[in-house]
This record gives sequence, structure tokens and C-alpha cells, in this order.
Amino acid sequence: MNEMLKGLGERAREAEVSVRNLSTDKKNQVLLAVADKLVAQGDALLKANAIDVENGKANGMPSGLVDRLLLTKERISGMAEGLVQIAALEDPIGEVTGMKKRPNGLLIGQKRVPLGVIGIIYEARPNVTADAFGLCFKTGNVVILKGGSDAIHSNEAIVNCIREALKECGVTEDAISLISDTSRETAAEFMKMNQYVDVLIPRGGKGLIKAVVEQSTIPVIETGTGNCHIYVDETADLSMAADIVINAKTQRVGVCNACESLLVHEKVKDAFLPVLGERLKEKHVEIRADKEAAALIPDAVLATEEDWGREYLDYIISIKVVGSVEEAIAHINRYNTKHSEAIITNSYVNAQKFLDEVDAAAVYVNASTRFTDGFEFGYGAEIGISTQKLHARGPMGLLALTTTKYIIYGSGQIRP
Amino acid sequence: MNEMLKGLGERAREAEVSVRNLSTDKKNQVLLAVADKLVAQGDALLKANAIDVENGKANGMPSGLVDRLLLTKERISGMAEGLVQIAALEDPIGEVTGMKKRPNGLLIGQKRVPLGVIGIIYEARPNVTADAFGLCFKTGNVVILKGGSDAIHSNEAIVNCIREALKECGVTEDAISLISDTSRETAAEFMKMNQYVDVLIPRGGKGLIKAVVEQSTIPVIETGTGNCHIYVDETADLSMAADIVINAKTQRVGVCNACESLLVHEKVKDAFLPVLGERLKEKHVEIRADKEAAALIPDAVLATEEDWGREYLDYIISIKVVGSVEEAIAHINRYNTKHSEAIITNSYVNAQKFLDEVDAAAVYVNASTRFTDGFEFGYGAEIGISTQKLHARGPMGLLALTTTKYIIYGSGQIRP
Repeated sequence: MNEMLKGLGERAREAEVSVRNLSTDKKNQVLLAVADKLVAQGDALLKANAIDVENGKANGMPSGLVDRLLLTKERISGMAEGLVQIAALEDPIGEVTGMKKRPNGLLIGQKRVPLGVIGIIYEARPNVTADAFGLCFKTGNVVILKGGSDAIHSNEAIVNCIREALKECGVTEDAISLISDTSRETAAEFMKMNQYVDVLIPRGGKGLIKAVVEQSTIPVIETGTGNCHIYVDETADLSMAADIVINAKTQRVGVCNACESLLVHEKVKDAFLPVLGERLKEKHVEIRADKEAAALIPDAVLATEEDWGREYLDYIISIKVVGSVEEAIAHINRYNTKHSEAIITNSYVNAQKFLDEVDAAAVYVNASTRFTDGFEFGYGAEIGISTQKLHARGPMGLLALTTTKYIIYGSGQIRP
Repeated sequence: MNEMLKGLGERAREAEVSVRNLSTDKKNQVLLAVADKLVAQGDALLKANAIDVENGKANGMPSGLVDRLLLTKERISGMAEGLVQIAALEDPIGEVTGMKKRPNGLLIGQKRVPLGVIGIIYEARPNVTADAFGLCFKTGNVVILKGGSDAIHSNEAIVNCIREALKECGVTEDAISLISDTSRETAAEFMKMNQYVDVLIPRGGKGLIKAVVEQSTIPVIETGTGNCHIYVDETADLSMAADIVINAKTQRVGVCNACESLLVHEKVKDAFLPVLGERLKEKHVEIRADKEAAALIPDAVLATEEDWGREYLDYIISIKVVGSVEEAIAHINRYNTKHSEAIITNSYVNAQKFLDEVDAAAVYVNASTRFTDGFEFGYGAEIGISTQKLHARGPMGLLALTTTKYIIYGSGQIRP
């Protein structure tokens, strides 16, 4: 392992011991201090960010990415506001649940504790830097960040702010560190630092997540892509169905909980698809449909097999006609990414069947898939949306950044 | 991917859909049918096992391993009894927890569901075959087993029994499958079958677990080795302390929750160590001690730095004198494997400090570390003891083989 990473890992492990046992008051004090400092040092942050933005433009970065990278006074206030909100959340650390007395008198309970050292690998969004620190620190974790080279100056400026605030509050600065070497080799080594990092969370596009899942030997929480479906059942309220499809497809297209594919029961296709087609057209949504659906929607192009598995993240939707709720469920379980799926129906039986049989992190009846989100679910914060089945599934709030340990009170028990 | 593995993975995924939705009654019927069949086909199992045992002996397998491999009428009854017990446990699948109404009227709850397809890689203990099937099947999971070449005939015979019973109960036989090719290459490919396997659980020695953690791209639940400590505090009841150390060290030496290392406060070393030394000697335990401890125990040999990190799994213990509870905690957090740790004390402050600051799956006050076990914790069954922090930590019962999905009941909600 290279010396820089090793030193960073050792300091993180050392910091872990004190950060793990900080009081809630102390943690909140730090979060508020960081919020203040980010705003106070706003000009310095903007200056550092300007270098990244300039480099990005010079390197031909697409305008969408430049926008993600860009900091403004408002965005800095937003980062600060996020930290203030995290400070206001309940601290899950230290709670003991399920304490039970065994027949031999042992009192066994589970205490909620931090994960330890969390690694986060992310791309060109500097706001993740403050956000990830806030969530990890509130839950008593140490965080090591590995951002992209595109945002390195912004990230360094933000991390410096945070470390200064930590120091001023009398807390070890190593509660956060940033890997300043953004090379792929260093990233690859980082993913194998099992001795120093307990959990790795990738935040970014499909390629980044795939690389982390394949290369990491550290346990990973996979946050994911969403090929989300809406199935309009034969008994659906068609006006509700159209509203939900339009919302889930167009309210924000570049997000993982947006609808990418629509399934329509053959008995309602004639009544539903021409009307929906019109409304999608108004929103400039390109339609890729199977033959049956395409026949009912002017301007629809024919979908290819590849379309059923696509996460467009764009003003495009695929549409397919199905013969039954069973066919819809089978199609979804075959092509989905296990993120969010919805049925629009008035049938009790079909609603329950869909909830039971669709394999996804979130399954909806009569609502937009866009609600799969930590804030919408009432968690007050979100570190990402897990599409794996281990540890956390769906929107992850503070609890997802904790684990438990058994604590056992005895009075001399030995095993017979 | 080789065709055999691919076919097996595809059949497992197909089986998953029906196994996931089996009723509890049906699952219990199968478990009892398998139990009956294992006993009824006892002679065939013994015959198959005899081949493995003969091969083992011919290949110079150590007698301890031969004993683990050996099946007897009693052991077959034991496997059957284990399945009967699993049938009697409550089925966790389908429970919905924490259903809450959001301000917009959405009703959001978490439903407990199977993990899906579970891969288990294990060594020469054929009883794991029936045991793992029982736990996975009870929780609605499909299981793919990869046993060692040493036990291949035994494993095949047991799996055939199970598949016959499944078929007779009208359930897909692919609820269980065994990879009959025991080569390392096939194992390596199996560990990268993310498309077909949701979770991988290694059960076996250190080498096996390390290989799986390093090579697998599938999420792993690491079950682990235990370098477990007992710290005898200055205020300890020394007679209780000696009983607990003797129990934790010698009640069964080859297990992960056995005590491997003892820390003694300097203020009680004179009163404690000579007496304990005598009792350890009676049990034929070799003592590797630091200088201070060795001076008080005849026959003790001097420990080397390497001893502090060793999991002996044998009649050997390391002993070190410490100056404070803080020093004990620091030593434990440096050398332990995050399994089970105990303090023997009458100090309230030191007990709470130890519980708070020791980083391990199970932390005890005044009890033997040998209690870290699914049965002792009241789970009625155990798939292993997790020493990782994600998903499950400590003894894993049925719940560890499940995940949740969000189910959301709406009435037309769209995101503003």
C-alpha cells in the first residue's frame, strides 16, 4: 500500500476511537460550526471552485456536468443549511434495543454504534463533500473521501473548512480526510484497505459503481441505478395513471427514481395510450414502444430489446402492452434494477400481488416512483439509495450508517 | 462463465420466484419431509460418507478433520432434529414493520422478504449441507452450495435426499443445488456470479474466509475467527474470574468464541495468577505470558509479539498484565478480531467503559465469551457468527437471511 494511504488509514483509525464516543451535543456543535464556516469562507470556496470550473470547460466538460460542479453563494448556503438540518436530527448512536433476559440470567441487548471508518468515492459534485461529512459525523463515523479530479480544488477547500471547524471545537481533524491523489491507481488501492476502512459507499454514475463493486474487497453499499417501471392495470383510474406517469417521467428526468418504462394492460391501451401520448408529446418525451403501443401513439418509434433494460435519465420512455398483471410482474422482475416500481390499479388482488411479487427496494400502489428518497420517506437526510439487499435497502438515512453490537450483562455465567 | 454454473444460476433465479412466495405451512412441510427422508435414507448416506472418509484417510487427512467429516446414525438424527427445530421457529418472512403515514397521505412500511439466492461456500462438514438448506429455505431463499472435495459424496447424497423431498412436496427441486465441480477455478467463478447470487456466506477456516472476502464481487457476510479476550479488572471477584477463564478457554477449544488471551490488572496479578495457573495446568493448557505474568506462573513460556494476535483454537492461552482498564481496552481493540470480549469487574464505571469502548460483535461483563452463539442468544438456530459490521453482527439467526422492501400504499400522489 502506498505510504500516503497507509498514513491516512492509520490516522482515521486513531480518530475513530474518539469520534465514536463524542456526545450528541458535541457533534451538533461541530456541525453548526462547519455550517457557519462554509458561509464565512464562501469567497475562498468560490475561488477554488472557479479553478475546477475553468479546467472543466477547458477540457470540454459537458454543460450538465459543469453545472453540477459549479458552486454559487446559494449552493454554499444550501450545503450549510443541510448541515444545520442534520444537527437537528435525532442521534441514533447509543440506543439499546431488544434487551432480553435469557433463562440463565444473562441480559442481552443490541446497542447501536457507528460503522467505524466509512470510505466514500464520488464524482464531480462538491456538495457531496459537506453532505457526506455531516451524515457520517452525526453517526460517530470517521470519513475518508475520494472525490473526482474534476472537483479537487473545490473538495480540498471544503475539507479544509471542515477540518478547521473541527479543530476549533477541540475535535480531531482526522474525523474527515480527503485523498488528494485522484489517480485510478490510488482509487484501486483505496478499495482494498480493509484494515482501515469498514464500509465503502460509491456515489455517482453506473461506471463508478460497477468499478467499486468489482474491485473493492471492503464491504460495499451499492447505491444504484434505477430502471423504474409503472404498470397501468386494467382497473386503473386512467386519469390518475396519466398524472402519475407524467410526474414520474418528467418532474425530473436525470434521477434514479424517475420512470423509464411503462407497461399497459391490453384492455385499457385504447383508452389510455392516445391520451397519454399527447401529454408526453407536450413534455417533449420521446416514446419507444412495442408494436401494439406504437400503433396507438403517433410519432412513437419501435422499441428494441435493448430498450427494456435502459435507464435513459432523459426525456425518453419505453412503452409495452401486456396481457395480465402476471406478465407485467415477470417483465419487471426480468428487466428492473430493483429500485422503484409502481402499479396503478383499483384491484385489491392485483395490488397485493404486485406488492408481494415485484422484487425491488420500493414497490408502490397508485403513487409516483419519484417518492423513493430519504427526505420524502421522512428520514430528514439521505446518503443514497441502496439497490442491494444486504444491510440497507432503499433510501438510506442516518441508521444506514450505523451497526449494532451485543452488550451482555452477566453475574458469573459460564457455559455448561 | 462456464455453462454448468450459468445453468445452475438460471435455474436458481427461476426457483427464487416460487420459493419466495411459499406459505409457512408449505415450508415447514418440506423441512419435516427432508428430516424424515434423511433418517430413512440413513444407510445410503453412510455409504456415500464412507467413500469420503476412506479417501480422506488415504490422503492423510488429520484425525480431527476425519472426525468432522464422519457421519453416524446419531449425527444423521442430529441433522434431522435440526430441521425439525427450524420448522418450529417463527417464520420472519412477510412481517411489515414501521408502517407510517406521511403528511401527503402515503402509507410507507417495510416488509421482511428473503434475500433471494444465497451462496454458501464451506469445508469438510457435511452437516452444514442440511443445516444451511434448512435456514435458507425457512426464510424463502434459494441456496447454492459449494462444499469441499473432501465431502463431495456425502454432500451429493444429502442434497439428493433434499431434492427428492422437495419434489414429493410439489416444490421446485432447484430450491437447493450443489456445485459438484469442487475445483478452485469453479469456486472463483462462482464468487463472481453477481447476476445469479445475492449474498455469499463462507463457512470454514481463516483461509477460506479470506479467499472469499478477497475474490468475491458478490456481497459477502464474513463469518469469523475469534481472538477473544478476558480482562480481569482490579475489582474483580477473583473466584468468578477463574471460573469464567477456565470455562471460556477449556469448555471447547476449537471454536471461535473460546478465550485466547487473558489480561490481568497489575493490582490483582499476585492474588490471581498463581491460582489460575494451577487450574490451567490441571486442564493441560499451555501458557504464553509476558514477563510480569510469567514470573507468577511456573511453566509459563514467554509470549512473543505474534502471540497477542493469535487465535490458537487449542489448549494454549496468552496472558498479559496491564496497568488500567484503558490499557486493556486499547490492547483489545488493537489485537482482537471484533468477535467476543469480556471484562470481569465489580466497578460500575469500568463495566460501562468496557461496554462502550471495546469494538466487538459481543461485549460481556462477568460472563464467559462462550455464550456468543445463536442458540444461547435465543435465536433457535445459527447460520454463523458475523464479524463484519454490515447487515448482521454477531450470531446470525433467521433474520440475518432476510432483507426488507418498502411497500407504499398511495391514492394518486405525485411529487410536487
